[in-house]
Amino acid sequence: MCANINEATLPAKNGVIYHLQVTANDVANNIIMVGDPERVPKIAELVFDKSKDIFRKDHRGLCVMTGYTIGDGMRLSVITHGMGTGSAEIVLNEVLALKAIDINSRTPIEVKEPVNIIRIGTSGALQSSTKLGTTIITKYSIGLDNTGLFYDIPPQSPQIVKLENIVDDLFNKGAANTCRYKGGIHAYASQPDPRMVDALVRASEKNKLLHKLGITTTVPGFFNCQGRLLFEELPETVESIDKLLCFDFDGVQPENLEMEISILSLISSGLKWVRFGAMCMAIANRRLNTFASDVESSLDPTVLTAVDALREMSKIPL
Amino acid sequence: MCANINEATLPAKNGVIYHLQVTANDVANNIIMVGDPERVPKIAELVFDKSKDIFRKDHRGLCVMTGYTIGDGMRLSVITHGMGTGSAEIVLNEVLALKAIDINSRTPIEVKEPVNIIRIGTSGALQSSTKLGTTIITKYSIGLDNTGLFYDIPPQSPQIVKLENIVDDLFNKGAANTCRYKGGIHAYASQPDPRMVDALVRASEKNKLLHKLGITTTVPGFFNCQGRLLFEELPETVESIDKLLCFDFDGVQPENLEMEISILSLISSGLKWVRFGAMCMAIANRRLNTFASDVESSLDPTVLTAVDALREMSKIPL
Repeated sequence: MCANINEATLPAKNGVIYHLQVTANDVANNIIMVGDPERVPKIAELVFDKSKDIFRKDHRGLCVMTGYTIGDGMRLSVITHGMGTGSAEIVLNEVLALKAIDINSRTPIEVKEPVNIIRIGTSGALQSSTKLGTTIITKYSIGLDNTGLFYDIPPQSPQIVKLENIVDDLFNKGAANTCRYKGGIHAYASQPDPRMVDALVRASEKNKLLHKLGITTTVPGFFNCQGRLLFEELPETVESIDKLLCFDFDGVQPENLEMEISILSLISSGLKWVRFGAMCMAIANRRLNTFASDVESSLDPTVLTAVDALREMSKIPL
Repeated sequence: MCANINEATLPAKNGVIYHLQVTANDVANNIIMVGDPERVPKIAELVFDKSKDIFRKDHRGLCVMTGYTIGDGMRLSVITHGMGTGSAEIVLNEVLALKAIDINSRTPIEVKEPVNIIRIGTSGALQSSTKLGTTIITKYSIGLDNTGLFYDIPPQSPQIVKLENIVDDLFNKGAANTCRYKGGIHAYASQPDPRMVDALVRASEKNKLLHKLGITTTVPGFFNCQGRLLFEELPETVESIDKLLCFDFDGVQPENLEMEISILSLISSGLKWVRFGAMCMAIANRRLNTFASDVESSLDPTVLTAVDALREMSKIPL
């Protein structure tokens, strides 16, 4: 932990952290994160044992619920990270602060148990062969947002730097020379915890979940940032991001576009006690311009699979 | 409007837009945007005439309320933009789509009335002389997030490009040569509507609101992105952003750090029928490491001032 953490650096009062408005005791070591706060009680309904205590706090459009899973009674928190990396950076840092910092004295706590975090979300598929409703497990994460560029975390391997360079080149060439911000978009890459990725694949196979392993690209918006142009006066810097992201990286391909994984994966890669994984259902196909119906987009099987993976990860000590 | 807007480009059903879950009729032409959805009903309570219809929709941690102001009955919407530019990009585009696109047929509507939007928020002050509780009116907006880099909107003036270059140089020099992402952070600048800025200054003077005019810098996160370091393992790319942002730009100085104005201002600058302005209270001083008490941070006088400015702007035709 850093020296000189003061009230302005980590706003909190009476052990309650600023944006989430919860204390360290309110958050479990196994965590599911979702974008939409309305999904938090839905997931709680699906996985929590109602005969045991269930905690809930709503604040600033964020929701935290903590309970015990049906059957084995694993303590689990379901937490909103909001829309976009700006919001996700706030929520993840606050969760990690609750685990590793005594909020009252602003002094470090020795972390003795791992923190396992899985983002479950929806995303747009990049390969025309991907059936709507497929859950994509992130093998590599690329951030085209720039929240992660403010974090000087060492790359996990030379491969990660290679992946960043591939995407930087694609985006630099992809913008017309006349574009005001040509050359201004840079990628940051990272890898979710390989043990978590394995656990997610195993759990998906066990539960017969339609799934794919791939590269997930995070973008800093939903409209121009994903090639959704609404107004002629607001043209895009890079044409057809979905078509640009066509490459093979050691047998893995860019599979989906979404808005939060890059920063969750990068920050987690810098802390040994955090194991992060992500699985996002494809609810749109960016190449075919299709959008899933309600029937195709139930996240329940994906959630149950994530809980199985958390069960496995929680048994692997630090 | 662009050709080929389909369901995947603009998700909507029965005239209801995807993330906000409202129809065109539910949103007024005068809009206050805030980050925290809990502020929406508080502002409604303060400014809406309760003898007239009040609309409310909550969805995905976002809230839209529309009513008529006490006294003159101006139709006004109060809308959450969420935390960060990713969320703000979604909300602004959806609001503008409701104004300029027939959502059912996905064809353009001729915009006949201006849309006036004021963001009201909280922010960290950058000048040690700024008293906590001061409302800072944005004269120039700098985005250090990169959501706006995906929008190829022409600069409003050569001055705007000059401002971008000043900040790019500062940030490039501000990162150590060993930093993984040195040179990767780029600024995009824009100016809120000058008539709106004037209206906000006049209304602030009329209401004796403690205020300042300045340059607002938007960052893509709250922790490392604003120099709030919690973990040694997660160092910052650029040291002390608050100390870097010390320059004079034609008599105007960087006054505050926040998380959404850059993209709201840039997108608005590209559409003639949108007039955007922003006023954020300083609730922290990044130079003094102080944080405002509840007493100092009531936004009510700022909200009433913004409503006065919207009253003035709504009388200026397209």
